[in-house]
Amino acid sequence: MYSPATKTMNIHYQTHPVIHPEPSIMPGSLPSDIQDKDKSPIYSASVKDAITLIRSIAPETLVETRFIDDADGYTLAAPVICREDMPGYDRSWKDGFAVNSRDVKGAKPENPAILTYTGEIRSGYSEKKQIKNGECAAIITGGPLPEGADAVVMHEYAILKGHSVEITCPVILGENVIRKDEDAKAGEVIYQEGWVLRPQDIGVLAGFGICTVQVRAMPVIGILSTGPELVPADGRPARGEIRETNSYLISALCRKLGAIPKRYGIAWEGSADLSHLLKTAVKECDAVIISGGSAHDERDRTAEVISGQGKLLLSGLSISPRKKMVIGEIGGKPIIGLPGHPASVYLLLLLVVTNLIQAMKGADAHGLLKEQVIAGVDIKSHPDREYHIPIRISGDRAYPLGRKAGMVSILSQCDGIIHIPQGSTGIKKGDVVEIMDLTCIRSPVSFPGIQ
Amino acid sequence: MYSPATKTMNIHYQTHPVIHPEPSIMPGSLPSDIQDKDKSPIYSASVKDAITLIRSIAPETLVETRFIDDADGYTLAAPVICREDMPGYDRSWKDGFAVNSRDVKGAKPENPAILTYTGEIRSGYSEKKQIKNGECAAIITGGPLPEGADAVVMHEYAILKGHSVEITCPVILGENVIRKDEDAKAGEVIYQEGWVLRPQDIGVLAGFGICTVQVRAMPVIGILSTGPELVPADGRPARGEIRETNSYLISALCRKLGAIPKRYGIAWEGSADLSHLLKTAVKECDAVIISGGSAHDERDRTAEVISGQGKLLLSGLSISPRKKMVIGEIGGKPIIGLPGHPASVYLLLLLVVTNLIQAMKGADAHGLLKEQVIAGVDIKSHPDREYHIPIRISGDRAYPLGRKAGMVSILSQCDGIIHIPQGSTGIKKGDVVEIMDLTCIRSPVSFPGIQ
Repeated sequence: MYSPATKTMNIHYQTHPVIHPEPSIMPGSLPSDIQDKDKSPIYSASVKDAITLIRSIAPETLVETRFIDDADGYTLAAPVICREDMPGYDRSWKDGFAVNSRDVKGAKPENPAILTYTGEIRSGYSEKKQIKNGECAAIITGGPLPEGADAVVMHEYAILKGHSVEITCPVILGENVIRKDEDAKAGEVIYQEGWVLRPQDIGVLAGFGICTVQVRAMPVIGILSTGPELVPADGRPARGEIRETNSYLISALCRKLGAIPKRYGIAWEGSADLSHLLKTAVKECDAVIISGGSAHDERDRTAEVISGQGKLLLSGLSISPRKKMVIGEIGGKPIIGLPGHPASVYLLLLLVVTNLIQAMKGADAHGLLKEQVIAGVDIKSHPDREYHIPIRISGDRAYPLGRKAGMVSILSQCDGIIHIPQGSTGIKKGDVVEIMDLTCIRSPVSFPGIQ
Repeated sequence: MYSPATKTMNIHYQTHPVIHPEPSIMPGSLPSDIQDKDKSPIYSASVKDAITLIRSIAPETLVETRFIDDADGYTLAAPVICREDMPGYDRSWKDGFAVNSRDVKGAKPENPAILTYTGEIRSGYSEKKQIKNGECAAIITGGPLPEGADAVVMHEYAILKGHSVEITCPVILGENVIRKDEDAKAGEVIYQEGWVLRPQDIGVLAGFGICTVQVRAMPVIGILSTGPELVPADGRPARGEIRETNSYLISALCRKLGAIPKRYGIAWEGSADLSHLLKTAVKECDAVIISGGSAHDERDRTAEVISGQGKLLLSGLSISPRKKMVIGEIGGKPIIGLPGHPASVYLLLLLVVTNLIQAMKGADAHGLLKEQVIAGVDIKSHPDREYHIPIRISGDRAYPLGRKAGMVSILSQCDGIIHIPQGSTGIKKGDVVEIMDLTCIRSPVSFPGIQ
C-alpha cells in the first residue's frame, strides 16, 4: 500500500521569533509600552522568518468528523487506519484463465498445456469455486481466484476448445493476481495525520469502506481594511479616494484555501475605529488580516493598535520589491497587517497567509505548485537582497508585472511569482525559471499582442 | 487595461460527430433501432474526437447574477464593461514632489532646480490643490496630482529645505504618474464573456466598482454506478464483491470543477434498474455520468439503456492503455458512460468530463495545468497509438503507475498524466516531459524510498 510520507518540509517551529541585530526597516518609533521584556518585535525579517513565525503562532482549529463525500480539501486530524485486508480475497487483474502454475510449466505454442475447462468466474458472484489439478476456469478482471488456482493466464495465451483449454505460455505463482492484502493490510496506516485530501483520496477511502474522517475545521479569518482614502467597492470615489479592493481579494483567496472569510469593512483614520473593529474581529474569528495596515504611512495605526491589545511580533519584511508587513498576536490569535496596494497584498497572501491557513488546519507547507517558464526579458537583481517578483505568463514566457503598483488592473495579470534568492544577480532572457502558482489561478487563456 | 483574450482554443463545435470509417472497437452488436438514420455512433474515437463531441452536445447552464464576493471560480456569462475612467484622476505612483516638468528641465546635483514648497498632498483627501510655475508639493504614492503639475520627482532626487525644494534630476511629462484613464477607460471591456473568475479578478472588479456579475450557474451532474459486484462504500464486500468507489471520486472532482454532484447509488445487474435510475437522473440533472458503464462486459447494459431512452453517439475510445467510454444524449442532456476501474475513471474524468463541465459553464478548455518533470524510467509506446499514462511524481521524476488496475490504492498515487501522441516510440528515462495536472491535486509531499 502506498503510504503518504511523514512530514518532509523541515519547518522548525520556534517559540521565540528570531531577533535580527540590525533593524534595517524601522516603522517609525514604537511606543515603549509595546516592547515586551521577553520578546522584542522583529524589525527586518526574511520571508522565511515570517513564515516560521506565523506557523509558530498559528492555533490549530478544532477537530470535526466529516462524511468523505464532503471532505475533499480538508486536512486529516488523525491517521486513517485500514480496518481489514484489502481486497480481502485473491483477485485476477487480467481477463483469462485461473490455473495452477504447476500445470502450465513449460507450455509453449508448439507444445501447449491442455487443461480441463470448468466454467467461468465473474466478479460480483460470491459462489466459492474450486479447481483441481489439471483444471482451469475462465476469469475476468476483478474476479475472485478459485481455490486451487494460484495464477491467471491471459486470454491471449489460451484457446478454449470445447471442454478443454490450450495454454501456450507458462505463468509463475501469483502472476496476474492481486493478493488478498496487496492493496493494504488490516491495521496499516493508509493516510497520515496532516494529509490534505484530494478527490482521488476520497475514492480510495470509499474503496476501503472508510466513510467518515476526522479533519480540522476551516479557520474563520476576519478581514479589515484601513485607510482614509478608501470608499466601499460599490461607492463612488471622489478625487484622491479609491475603492476598497483588498477585502474582496483576501476573501476570495481564503475561500480557495479552505478558510471562511468574515469581512468587517473599512476602519477610518485614527486608531479608535480600528481598535474597536479589531476587538470585535478577534472575538469572532480565529485570525485577523488587516490590509492597508503595514505601517507604511505614519497615519497607519495598525502596529500601535495591535500592541495596545496584544503583542507586536514582527514589523518589516526585508524583501524586494519592498513590502511592509506586521505580525502580532492578540489573545492567542494571529493578526497580520498587510500593505495597501493590491498587488503587494496578493504577493504576501500567497507567500505568508497561505502558511497561516495551512498551519491552522494542521497541514505542512504544500501546494507550492511550481511551473517552469522561460524568462521573456532580463530580470536584474541585487545580490544582497531576496526578490519575489510577480509575473504574468504569455505563452511559455514570464514577464515581470509593471511596477505601477497603484493600478488596480495589474492584479488581474498576476499569474505567478519568481523567487530570486540572495546572492543572485538576476535572470537572463531565455533562462528557464521556476515560478510559484499556489492556487491554480493562472490565467486560462494567453494574452494577445504581448508575445 | 489588460484585456483577456478572445477564445484562443480552436475547438470547432460540430453539430454532427465525426464518423470513423473503421470501427476498430465494436461493442458487441448494437440493436438496429438505436442506429439513427442521420447519425451513426462513433465506434473508435480519439480523445480529441470525444472532447469535440462532448463540447458540441453540452447544454449551457442558466445565467445568474452573483455578488462578486461569491463569484470566484464562476464563468462570466456576459462581458464586464468599465463604467468610468479609472482611476478617475491623475495619481502619483511614487513618493516625492509633484512638479511641472518644464520647471525641472536640466536639473542636476551640481545645478539643482529650486522650487517653492507649497505643502503636501495625500491620498484620501479630496481638497483640490493647485501649483503655479516654480512651485511644487509633496505627494505620496496614490496621491492626486495637483492642478498645474504634470510629473512627480521621486524623493531620492529632492531635498526639502525650509520653504523650498532642491530638485537634482529632471522628469519628463507624465513621469511617475498614472493617468486618469490608464487603468481603464469608460466603456472598455474589462473581462470577456467566458472568462473564469480568479481571486485577483474579484479584487479588480471591486476596484472598478463592479459588485455583481452575470455568470453561468453550476451544472448539476447526476452520478450512477453499475455492476453486480458493487456494494455500498459502507458495506462489507463478500468474496467477489468490491465497494463502490467511483461515485465518490466523481462527486469530489465535480465539486472541485464547480459542478453540483447528485448521487443516485448503484444500479444492479440488468437493464431495468439502470433504466429506471437513469430516467430519474436525466429528469433532475443537467448531465449524467454512469461508471462501470462503458460496455466492457456484455452484462453492461449502459449503451443499450442510453439508446432506449435517447441516442448513442460514441462507443469506444482508441487510446492506450485501452479505456472504454460511451457518450450519448437523452432529451438534450449528455450522458457519459465510464469504465469501472477507478484509475481509468479518473483519467477519463480529467480528459473528457472536465470539458463537459467547462462547456456547460460556457468556458473554453482551460486549467490544463502543465508541469515539466523528468521521466524516471523508459516509457515505451507504439507509434500507431495515442497514449495517456497516469503517473506519480517523486521529487522531480515521473513514474507510470503500476498496471494493477484493480487495486484501489493506486488511485491515491495519481499525480498527473503524460500524453504520448501518435507517431512517437516513447519516452526515455531522463527526458523532460510535460505532465497534465488539471486540478492542482498533486500529492503535497514526496514519497519516501522511491527516489
